[in-house]
Amino acid sequence: MATSSLLLISSCIISVLLQAASASKTRHFKWEVGYIYASPDCNEKVLIGINGKFPGPTIRAKAGDTIHVELKNALHTEGVVIHWHGIRQLGTPWADGTASISQCAIDPEETFLYRFRVEKAGTYFYHGHYGMQRAAGLYGSLIVDAADGEEEPFRYDGEFNLLLSDWYHQSIYDQMVGLSSKPFRWIGEPQTLLINGRGQHNCSLAAHLIEGSGKCESMSKDCAPVVLRVLPNKTYRLRIASTTSLASLNLAIGNHKMVVVEADGNYVEPFMVGDIDIYSGESYSVLVTTDQNPSSNYWLSIGVRGRKPKTSPALAIVNYRPNSPSKLPESSPPVVPEWSDYNHSKSLSYRILARRGATKPPPQSADRRIVLLNTQNTVDGYTKWSINNISLALPPTPYLGSMRYRLKNAFDGGMPPENFPSNYDVMRPPKNPNSTQSSNAYVIRFNSTVDVILQNANALAVNVSEIHPWHLHGHDFWVLGYGDGRFDEEEDVARFNLKNPPLRNTVVIFPYGWTAIRFVADNPGVWAFHCHIEPHLHMGMGVIFAEGVEHVGRIPKEALTCGMTGKMLMDNHLP
Amino acid sequence: MATSSLLLISSCIISVLLQAASASKTRHFKWEVGYIYASPDCNEKVLIGINGKFPGPTIRAKAGDTIHVELKNALHTEGVVIHWHGIRQLGTPWADGTASISQCAIDPEETFLYRFRVEKAGTYFYHGHYGMQRAAGLYGSLIVDAADGEEEPFRYDGEFNLLLSDWYHQSIYDQMVGLSSKPFRWIGEPQTLLINGRGQHNCSLAAHLIEGSGKCESMSKDCAPVVLRVLPNKTYRLRIASTTSLASLNLAIGNHKMVVVEADGNYVEPFMVGDIDIYSGESYSVLVTTDQNPSSNYWLSIGVRGRKPKTSPALAIVNYRPNSPSKLPESSPPVVPEWSDYNHSKSLSYRILARRGATKPPPQSADRRIVLLNTQNTVDGYTKWSINNISLALPPTPYLGSMRYRLKNAFDGGMPPENFPSNYDVMRPPKNPNSTQSSNAYVIRFNSTVDVILQNANALAVNVSEIHPWHLHGHDFWVLGYGDGRFDEEEDVARFNLKNPPLRNTVVIFPYGWTAIRFVADNPGVWAFHCHIEPHLHMGMGVIFAEGVEHVGRIPKEALTCGMTGKMLMDNHLP
Repeated sequence: MATSSLLLISSCIISVLLQAASASKTRHFKWEVGYIYASPDCNEKVLIGINGKFPGPTIRAKAGDTIHVELKNALHTEGVVIHWHGIRQLGTPWADGTASISQCAIDPEETFLYRFRVEKAGTYFYHGHYGMQRAAGLYGSLIVDAADGEEEPFRYDGEFNLLLSDWYHQSIYDQMVGLSSKPFRWIGEPQTLLINGRGQHNCSLAAHLIEGSGKCESMSKDCAPVVLRVLPNKTYRLRIASTTSLASLNLAIGNHKMVVVEADGNYVEPFMVGDIDIYSGESYSVLVTTDQNPSSNYWLSIGVRGRKPKTSPALAIVNYRPNSPSKLPESSPPVVPEWSDYNHSKSLSYRILARRGATKPPPQSADRRIVLLNTQNTVDGYTKWSINNISLALPPTPYLGSMRYRLKNAFDGGMPPENFPSNYDVMRPPKNPNSTQSSNAYVIRFNSTVDVILQNANALAVNVSEIHPWHLHGHDFWVLGYGDGRFDEEEDVARFNLKNPPLRNTVVIFPYGWTAIRFVADNPGVWAFHCHIEPHLHMGMGVIFAEGVEHVGRIPKEALTCGMTGKMLMDNHLP
Repeated sequence: MATSSLLLISSCIISVLLQAASASKTRHFKWEVGYIYASPDCNEKVLIGINGKFPGPTIRAKAGDTIHVELKNALHTEGVVIHWHGIRQLGTPWADGTASISQCAIDPEETFLYRFRVEKAGTYFYHGHYGMQRAAGLYGSLIVDAADGEEEPFRYDGEFNLLLSDWYHQSIYDQMVGLSSKPFRWIGEPQTLLINGRGQHNCSLAAHLIEGSGKCESMSKDCAPVVLRVLPNKTYRLRIASTTSLASLNLAIGNHKMVVVEADGNYVEPFMVGDIDIYSGESYSVLVTTDQNPSSNYWLSIGVRGRKPKTSPALAIVNYRPNSPSKLPESSPPVVPEWSDYNHSKSLSYRILARRGATKPPPQSADRRIVLLNTQNTVDGYTKWSINNISLALPPTPYLGSMRYRLKNAFDGGMPPENFPSNYDVMRPPKNPNSTQSSNAYVIRFNSTVDVILQNANALAVNVSEIHPWHLHGHDFWVLGYGDGRFDEEEDVARFNLKNPPLRNTVVIFPYGWTAIRFVADNPGVWAFHCHIEPHLHMGMGVIFAEGVEHVGRIPKEALTCGMTGKMLMDNHLP
């Protein structure tokens, strides 16, 4: 008895020690992706959850940790992948989680191991990257704290995590079919905005409250506003990330200012705002000091920007303790800026600069400049988005495998164009709206420095140009500048900010404007660069960058089971 | 000029000759399975079509032909397979089109070649056999005519093909999630019945017509009754097949009798009926003589049997030429027999016998008897159907590959039970409703003769026992008998019809009754035997028969790309 107790205690100690050791290095997760019923806005819908939950579980790690997600696909008949948005995947390009690009979709009943390192503290998230599964609810937060012994360059007393999204009542299957149909069927505006998977639809809570007419009776906890419990006179970090399908958002807190300190996992020079625009694919940290009348609670709200909004704002309550969280704020929710007030949006974007001393400045010159014209087009009567007149059609065999193993004809050959015709008028609909579909890719010299100019233009309708948040996989990039109208290769280049441009992984182009970014192609792999609006990507709005693929290590077979790599593997023709 | 004309003519002749030669032997089809919008009952829905059409194209061939279907999966994120219902697949078990059983689901963008021989003239159909894709509209007709020089044992002047189905407005994704959820959510009764993909919903055509109040105004051609144009005093063959998800149907034609001549691709001794019950998975040919008043048109209608109907009948018009097809029949559509009048149904089933001289009688004794108790159960609180207390859970690796290559642990070991406890009361709900899930399979000695007794029982609710049409893949079987209550292994066996039992591939068990079948295990492969009701199969209502797997030829790699066979192939461990 004594011996067995001793054994038990020893084994407990060993297991505790092992856990402690592993906790600081590798974090294990076992996930099952499957359909669940949920009511994010109190309207029940079948959506994609992880381990029965929506949104998926939050991953919390420290910089330098290794994340280990054993992902089982428990969908009935569909494949699945998960992309770790903002994580560079240096040395593990096969773990980027992009179907047709970095890996084969995981078949039903199969398990895929995502194993990757999180290098840098910051606010990240993850989401589906196959078909439009992100819009079906397949997303969650990934928060990386500073490594032990390291410190964030700002102080706070507590933090909250707000994952923002938008919500459609139509299934993603119906959405995908509509977008792929002739005649084209647009998905329209979302029915609801969500904060941490909860939003207020149809019960008109926001409207009622603005009019002071009291609480919505039918509100269940599924869609009740999230409560942020705070103490007076403290400073809180709000981590905000947007994984919306379509909506550009604006977030504000009644009576409170916010100090922006982080963008996409990079520190920025702190600046104060009353409200903040967040585009799909972006993340921010803001510091909020609870210095207002502590006997009151306050609304935090998010509303739609950049498209004529048909969706009510979503709300959260900043609850000053010891007030009851159900005590309604005395003041109305913040008013969302006019949707078309782009100057307001630009003034925010222009203020985002690298934090002094946080990173070294970018290379002062680039080896190559790629100008990407964003246009709405038709291909054989199907409505598409195109880049330099090519609408991206992903190939059946993921690029990473077919390029690494030099398979022929796995995707369209030829380099896509580096620029667009000089006589193209970005202010008017395309004269000839026909474009073509292709899966061709930009091959980029390893370790070279590349400038990309994203040039916005008129869409198919007259006087319409839309916001597009572009997200780059595998890299952060410096945002060198923004401008209105057509990019001028002399004047605008001369005005690039080469001193303290912010590092981002997502950046917006404003209507009829351009945005210039620079990155170093130092991450062997194949990387998507695309509009983060889910239906736009589905309609072909993206390009593929391949760099240093010859330096990619041994790709796990599980990432190669489909298409030509699958066939080659089976014929034993791959190393 | 003259030479080139000559060349052109010669090449035309050669091509015509080649076509003529190939037309009688191998028939090539190139199909793309994809989502389309369609309005089968004038309510638009996204459904699965083939080459943009719903139902899929009709395959027409002659006995002895080889069918060659190059099937491309153009669904966005889902796998797909197609089962050729009633085709034996002798020598080609990998072409049976059953996911998890005969092949891996075809991934999006991939193409699979179905190549198989149609041996026997008859009325067949094809349909999806992965998840509940059949219920999403993935089906069509497969008609095999007598070989050149052969004759059907009956004469007719023309024929019509009627593929019957039922239709739900809820998507199959929502249906699958509900059926797989705790608490269980039943799909309910179908919204509409369809004849050749058309039905009348909500516009209450049938009701109006019965009351003589005229045509439904809003009817568009998508859901208008199918018109069968006939001449007076001729005999027509109606080919009728049912691929319903749930509904058992009854078909009748106003004022006309029908002579049943074929069932499931086998000739039956002709007999006359006023109406005919058709269960999901069955097919019939009936002869109808147009001997009624030729100045009138007549209704053909199908209605629900065996479940309290909440679905209106679907209609077709038998249009005696030269009447206008839009001339409404003078008499009301036939009245569907009372849904619970099982004696009416039994009297039909009992009359179906093999046509004299058409086939040889069955082996007069069996080598083995397997008794399969059908019960509704719960497994960990999930509602399931079980066979001898096992609810079928299909494995990630298809049986055919894992058995052929003797892979370990690809499915649950152990033989499932051959019988059920003698004290089980089939008339009452299970005392202990808990059952287990398993993927274990019945291994059957090659070329042995097997009797299977399907024993129906009470469902979970008191006084409820449902109809289940059981379908066997890879074989026709003889229906040796039916009975009420518990099967008696002495008395009932003694009463088996061993003289002229009909050959079928699908047979029904009536509430609280039993059905006995016999088959010869002469088809090397792995074959599903299951309730053809789509939600019941999804809930585990089936068993697996494996026979002579060692005689299976080289399985095409394309059928093995998933699960353990996929891994073994990639590690080059398979022959």
